[in-house]
Order: sequence, then structure tokens, then C-alpha cells
Amino acid sequence: FSTETVLSDKARNVLLLLADDGGFEIGAYRNKICQTPNIDELARNGLLFNNAFTSVSSCSPSRAALLTGSPSHQNGMYGLHHGVHHFNSFDNVTSLPNLLRENGIMTGIIGKKHVGPSSVYQFDYEQTEENNHINQVGRNITHMKLLAREFIASANKENKPFFLYVAFHDPHRCGHSDPQYGPFCERFGSGEEGMGTIPDWQPWYYQWDEIQLPYFIQDTEAARRDIAAQYTTMSRLDQGVALILKELESAGHADDTLVIYTSDNGIPFPSGRTNFYDPGLREPLIIRSPSSSARKNEASGAMVSLLDIMPTVLDWFGIEKEMTNDIWDGDTPKSLLPILEKEPPPSDSDAVFASQTHHEITMYYPMRAVRTRRYKLLHNLNYGMPFPIDQDLYVSPTFQDLLNRTRSKQPLPWYKTLKQYYYRPQWELYDLRKDPAETNNLHGKPSLEEVESNLRERLSRWQRSTRDPWLCSPDAVMERDSDNAVCRSLDNGLLNYHTL
Amino acid sequence: FSTETVLSDKARNVLLLLADDGGFEIGAYRNKICQTPNIDELARNGLLFNNAFTSVSSCSPSRAALLTGSPSHQNGMYGLHHGVHHFNSFDNVTSLPNLLRENGIMTGIIGKKHVGPSSVYQFDYEQTEENNHINQVGRNITHMKLLAREFIASANKENKPFFLYVAFHDPHRCGHSDPQYGPFCERFGSGEEGMGTIPDWQPWYYQWDEIQLPYFIQDTEAARRDIAAQYTTMSRLDQGVALILKELESAGHADDTLVIYTSDNGIPFPSGRTNFYDPGLREPLIIRSPSSSARKNEASGAMVSLLDIMPTVLDWFGIEKEMTNDIWDGDTPKSLLPILEKEPPPSDSDAVFASQTHHEITMYYPMRAVRTRRYKLLHNLNYGMPFPIDQDLYVSPTFQDLLNRTRSKQPLPWYKTLKQYYYRPQWELYDLRKDPAETNNLHGKPSLEEVESNLRERLSRWQRSTRDPWLCSPDAVMERDSDNAVCRSLDNGLLNYHTL
Ligand SMILES: [Ca+2]
Ligand SMILES: [Ca+2]
Ligand SMILES: [Mg+2]
Ligand SMILES: [Mg+2]
Repeated sequence: FSTETVLSDKARNVLLLLADDGGFEIGAYRNKICQTPNIDELARNGLLFNNAFTSVSSCSPSRAALLTGSPSHQNGMYGLHHGVHHFNSFDNVTSLPNLLRENGIMTGIIGKKHVGPSSVYQFDYEQTEENNHINQVGRNITHMKLLAREFIASANKENKPFFLYVAFHDPHRCGHSDPQYGPFCERFGSGEEGMGTIPDWQPWYYQWDEIQLPYFIQDTEAARRDIAAQYTTMSRLDQGVALILKELESAGHADDTLVIYTSDNGIPFPSGRTNFYDPGLREPLIIRSPSSSARKNEASGAMVSLLDIMPTVLDWFGIEKEMTNDIWDGDTPKSLLPILEKEPPPSDSDAVFASQTHHEITMYYPMRAVRTRRYKLLHNLNYGMPFPIDQDLYVSPTFQDLLNRTRSKQPLPWYKTLKQYYYRPQWELYDLRKDPAETNNLHGKPSLEEVESNLRERLSRWQRSTRDPWLCSPDAVMERDSDNAVCRSLDNGLLNYHTL
Repeated sequence: FSTETVLSDKARNVLLLLADDGGFEIGAYRNKICQTPNIDELARNGLLFNNAFTSVSSCSPSRAALLTGSPSHQNGMYGLHHGVHHFNSFDNVTSLPNLLRENGIMTGIIGKKHVGPSSVYQFDYEQTEENNHINQVGRNITHMKLLAREFIASANKENKPFFLYVAFHDPHRCGHSDPQYGPFCERFGSGEEGMGTIPDWQPWYYQWDEIQLPYFIQDTEAARRDIAAQYTTMSRLDQGVALILKELESAGHADDTLVIYTSDNGIPFPSGRTNFYDPGLREPLIIRSPSSSARKNEASGAMVSLLDIMPTVLDWFGIEKEMTNDIWDGDTPKSLLPILEKEPPPSDSDAVFASQTHHEITMYYPMRAVRTRRYKLLHNLNYGMPFPIDQDLYVSPTFQDLLNRTRSKQPLPWYKTLKQYYYRPQWELYDLRKDPAETNNLHGKPSLEEVESNLRERLSRWQRSTRDPWLCSPDAVMERDSDNAVCRSLDNGLLNYHTL
């Protein structure tokens, strides 16, 4: 890839700020209740993307995709990296930090790493859950600011350009790991008794009846209290963003650093994380460029993917790398720098792709999706079984409330039933313009036959060119015919999509 | 564990001979057609086990289980190790070769390794697919004999006891990887034109109409020809066994070496490999001990697992290791050395356990099983989807014949239909005494209610004590209540077994 962008001589560094499970609880994204003055200010000084999507709604797979520019099925991170899940990218994958290091950029990570093997994802400076408690490097924003200071000082000392990846653990849940701090660790360091104090954090508290309820969460007190806790955690994240940006400025790099704010996957609520519905796929994305010609305080409607982050960073540093697999123009990751200068004309064929397989090792529910501006086609490969629920979501007040109300046949003011949530058809097709909540599956509708078959072919071509092992699943086996992958029917009673 | 066995002063070494996908195509196991004079002779000089079972019917998981004494769900090898499958045992697992090396035993592997990471499975001497072509170290028996000679000579030179693991690639299929050599690579090195020559191998050929048909393979010419090819490959394995044993003898170790012959999983035919029906689980096992009091030319009916191999080898070398998880006596791996001296009294409670999750990365079909002398209880966790077929089996003449006959509605002289093979219920219970072919599922039968609930509880306790991540699947989520794993119901419409 290449762009026409001309960078100033001063352009040197990249700061990537990642919110763990973060969503749109942000003033700049029109949440009227959750206060995020610092992220809002970043947006005023940069470009806010309204159509940014992750390629996989699960932590390790999303981070691996972000750091390799390749979907999870192509880099091998099929699920979570830690503990019994134990997924790792392939040993021969080229990652952003490795490529940057080879090109003389100093690389650093502070916070949650959650990918491996180490040889594939190696930063010069690593302060992560591998050598710290995750809450100290991911939520203790005072500690994080000091680490950022240390890293930037060392880059300054060596007079090297740098890539700093600050991977906040906020606003991730804690109910499964550290329940003593509340469902979102919103009490960790809050100054309350026994909770410790994070000096730089001024917690913001919210009333459960004032939160702004997303359409995909039930309207109950339990769920609203859960969201109120999430908002409090957002205040720690937001103030952490300010602290890191201040370190950048103090070290003299406010004017030569590309700043990117985004998140890895959807918020940890039903239809969010681990889902390919929009609440699972859509991500906040704000990019602040010091370039004098860069757009500021504007919003972009460009359809972009987190797979585009790696080419963007490489483009920023002027490092050439062929990201193309021989696929259709536009279906391959691309630098976002041109968009920072000028809004591209929208097209009906703009699309992003997504691929997920596991989250936890026990949660096998492969999905593949293509999303255009108007339509989403979703392929659920293991649709004969119920959609799996992760341990973290399971114990959450919101999910327990769904379970309890369903069990006791109390009213459940939700946009779905639990049964609908669990049982999904093999194919889902939504007209997002008419049905943004994705409740009306148009799969198989005769008037959309051409739309659907075009999307299916485009998805299949993307899977093929990104070497998806699940290309032929679940009705066929993949075999090679000379060098070409072919799908050979299993005759297993499932509809034959691959071999017709 | 401990045994009363008194070994002679000369007892020093272990030779483990593993047949890849090998079954009972062996004279000593009463196959009247397939000629295996050398394995038969080994059996005449040792003890032949009639009730030996693998704990998982898939290559890498079985080898990892063999080399760690722990089921696949406990050591992390949830599926195949190579390529896009990319499964690895956990980094903190203790393996047999590592433990032996630490105890001054020289360790060697010749042939197919198929496990990782390297740090967990480290041999002093490795000639495997990682540094050779697999056919050269796994099927070229002349080359393999020379490697064995080299390894034993170096152990002799250093005057060290040794553990030599010869992992034949025979009689594995080749149709997916090297079809030019025939479905079982039965023409590799056969001396036919273009096939090369293995000097030490005299191929034996069989007529398709004379083979001995197992009950689980259809009676058709195509399947019979497939079996005839497998038999030819058995002749290479059998002659390879003789060559390795001769090296042992020539090096002066015929009388101080424990020799074990077994296989990793069922034969690569329907209901065999990747299945938990008996053709997938039951393994040949022959142990020849040089002890003067060891049983010779006898058969044992003891119920044993390949998980017992590690404690057996440690016992042989006098290395103490606690293999027990706090489970019921007898449900934990145990040394087989006492059985070599004296047949243990059979009991209705004798049992073996099995656990499988993936084979290929796309083949998610977790199964858990407990098998006593009389009953087998099988839990299919992903039963809402068809049973998956591996790439290697798919292209086999036998499976293609099943597909073609089913498609064209030709007669199919098989004990099942393809539809029955694909679609399995969540629970299967068989009375193996009355129904050795496992065609009559007794799950839920009132007269067997107590039998079934006892087996289910025993299986569940084994899963719990071996830390099975799938303990609560598919109807519940595993959470911790203080240090105890508890299953919390998902209310996902599946029968509630775990939380009742
Ligand atoms: Ca996350
Ligand atoms: Ca095998
Ligand atoms: Mg690897
Ligand atoms: Mg590891």
C-alpha cells in the first residue's frame, strides 16, 4: 500500500491507547451521562470514526489481529491466550512490534498484553500482566503514568522514535477474578475503606436510574446498576488517558506523535463481547494527528477495521510492507492516514470482515461475518449448539438478572428472550438501515437473494485469501486440488453451501 | 505409587515401540490374514494385553497423554500439534522424557514426535519430523535401524541407562499428504518403479477378497482394498520392529530392557480414530520384560490405560513420582509392572477413562467417557452438530465409498448408516457384554438407571480431579466457590446434569 500523505519532518511517534472491552460510554460518542472530558478533548483535536469495527470480539484474538493486521484464523490466535485456553499465534507471524523494532523504532507496552508467543510479540519495554499484577499496570493510572514517563524518557535519551502501546485494563469486568472490588473493579483504588487509593484518580459515581441505557441491555435496576459501575470505571480510564497524554506533552512529543484511541471488543454485556452483532463489533476510534493538514474536531463515516491499525502505523513510520493477499481491492487492510486528511467518498461496497472461533477454550462458536454500510451477513458455524457464555459475563449482575427473570417468569424488559439469544440460525442477514438492532433475520428472503449471495461470495473469498481453516465448515471438508483449497461435501445433512 | 516388583540388577532400559494408528492387524491378536511374525514373537516372549485403551483417539493428544500420564484436557494438548491446529501442552507440565533426563537416563526419540512445546518434551536425541522428512524417520525402517544403532551406541559409550521411543509412522494413512505412494504409503520404498527401495523391507501383498473384515467397516471391494493396503504397511512396521529389536540385542541389551509395543489411537477407519467407540479406544499392548519371573506367552485381561505407561516406566527406573490426584483408588494412572508378574483379580469396578476435544482445529467434538469391563458411558458435548471427519479419512477409499454409496443409494453393507454415524446423542450407554459393537444405546433405560448414574458420577469425579475445563459443559458454566469448581446452570435448554 502507499499513500499520498506527506508527513512533517517532526512526525516520529505513535501512542496507541486501548480500552479493554470499552464501548461508546464516551461524551464524544454522544453518551450524555458518562463523563469522559479527556477522551472528548482528544476527539476535539482529532478525527472521530463512526464506523470502526473490530475483526473479532474477544480479547487475545483482537489484540493479535490488531498487532498483525491479520484476522484471528490467519494468525493462529483462535481464542484467549492465558491459562487453560492457551492459544498462541503461529511462530512465523510478523507482528507490528517486531517489525518496528527491526526498523529502529523503540517499542513499549504498558498494561494488558494477552498475546503470545513472546518471540512473535516482543517489545523493547514491557510492563504487563506477565511481570506485574494486571490491576497495577492496567488500572492504577498513577503507576501507569510513571511507567509511560520512564519509557518515553528512555526513547528521548536514545533519541529514537517510539511506539507506545498503553493497554488499559479498564473498563473490563472483575466479577469473575476480583469480585471484592465490584463487578468492574470500580472500587479498586477508589479510596473507600480497604480499596486502596490511586492518587491521580477522582472517581465519578452515577445513579442507576440516570444511566443511558443501550438498546441491547434490559431495562432493570440490576442491569442499570451494572452500567453505573461501568461508568465509574470509565472515569478511571478517561483520567488515565489524560495522564498519559500529559506525559507525552511533558516529554516534548505532543506535536510529533500520532495518538490512537480504540478498544479491542464490544462491551461485556449480552450481544456485546463475544458477539458479532454491532454491539460486539463496533468500536470507538479516535485518531489525533499532529499534521497541520489533519482534520480536527470532525467525524468520519469511513468504514474501517482495527485490521487497518497496523498498516496505518507502518505508513506513519514510512515502513513499507505488503499487506495484500491477492484479494479484492478494499478487502485488505489499509492505512487510515489518507482519511485523516480527507473524507473518502462512501460506497455501497465498503465492507469490513470479522472472524471468531473460541473465546474461552470451552466456548467453541465460530462465526464469520461481512458488514457493509447497509447489510451484515453472519455465518454461525456451530449453530446446532447454544451460544456460549463466558465465565466473566455469567456472574455479572446483568446476566444473572436475565437468568433469574427468565427462570421465575418475571417481566423481562429486553429486546430478546434468553432462548433467542442462545439459539441462532446458521445464517443471519440484517438490513442495518431498517433494522439497526438486528432483530429481523432476512436470510433466504427472495427479494434479497442477490444481496445475500454477493455477500456470501465476498465473505467466502475473504476467508479463502486469508487462509481460513474453517473455509469449508460445517458441511464440507477442505482438501487441496494442486495448490487450490477445495471444499468437498460431507453429505452430513447440513445445507450444501460450499460445493454447489 | 509403589510396587513389590524386584528387578534384577541388570534392569536398565526401556524401548517403547509405537505404531501410528495401529490396531489389531496382528497375528498375536488373532488376525489370521495379516502377517506379523515379529510382533507375534514379541508377544510370545512377553505379556499381551487384551484390555488396553488409549485415553484419547487422536495423534498429538494421545502422545502427550502417553508422555505425561495425564489426559489431554489436563496437559493442554487439546488437538493436533502441527500446522494450523497448533495445540501445545502447558509450559509447566512434567513429561516422561524431561523427568528421565533429570534422573540421568539417556532419552531418545526416532520417528514422529507430534507434541510440543519443545521445552516440555525434550529428548537428548531427537530424529523426528522436526528435523527430517517424516517418512524417512517413520517409515524407512533401514534408516530407522541405523538411527537406533547410533543412539544405543552413544548410551553404551556413556554407560547410561536409556529410554528409546521409536515412533513408527506406519501404519498411518497418506492419502491426504502423499497420495503418490498409495492410501497408506504402502508403496513408499516398495521397490516398484519410482517408489524407491527400503533395503530391509520385504513387502507383503494381500488380495482384497482375503482380508479379515472388522465388524465396523463395510463389506465392499473398495473398503477391502483399503484394508489390504493397510496390511502391506503393517509388514513394514512388523519388519521394522524386528530390526529395532535386533539393534537392541546386538548392542547387548536384550536382557536388561523393558520393551513395550502399543499404538496411539484407533485405526483410521470409521468408528476408529477420532472415535470413542471401542475401535477408536482399544489398543494393542505387548510388554516384554527381561525379569526372570515375568509372564511370557500369556495374555492379560487387566483393564489398563496408556496413561499407565508413564508410571510403568518410572517404576521400572525406580523413579518416584506422585501421579495421584486426590481421586478414587484405581482411577489414577498406575504402574503395570505388577501385572507382568501376576494377573490381578478382575473386578466390575475396573475402569478406564477417556477425554478428547479437537483432532484438527476445525473438528470440535469434545467427548468424555468411562469404560468398565461391561459398560461404556460416553458424553458427547457438541452433539447438536454432526460428528466431524478428518481430512485424511475423508479422502480414503473407505470413506469415499461410504459417501458414494449413500449418495447414489447403492447397497451399503455396513453396520450403520452415514446419518447415524454423523448424528449422535448427548449420552451413549452400551452394555459391551451383550452389544460389543455399541449399536444399542441404553441411555435412560430405567433398569440401568443406577448403573448409568454411578458411571456418570464416576466420570464427573474423574473430570473434576483432572481439572477438566469442560467439567460443566454444555449446560453450565464453571465458576469457583472458594477453591472448589462449581457448575452453574446456563438454562440454555439443554438437560441439566451438572447442577441438579
Ligand atoms: Ca477485551
Ligand atoms: Ca496416530
Ligand atoms: Mg507455536
Ligand atoms: Mg504455552
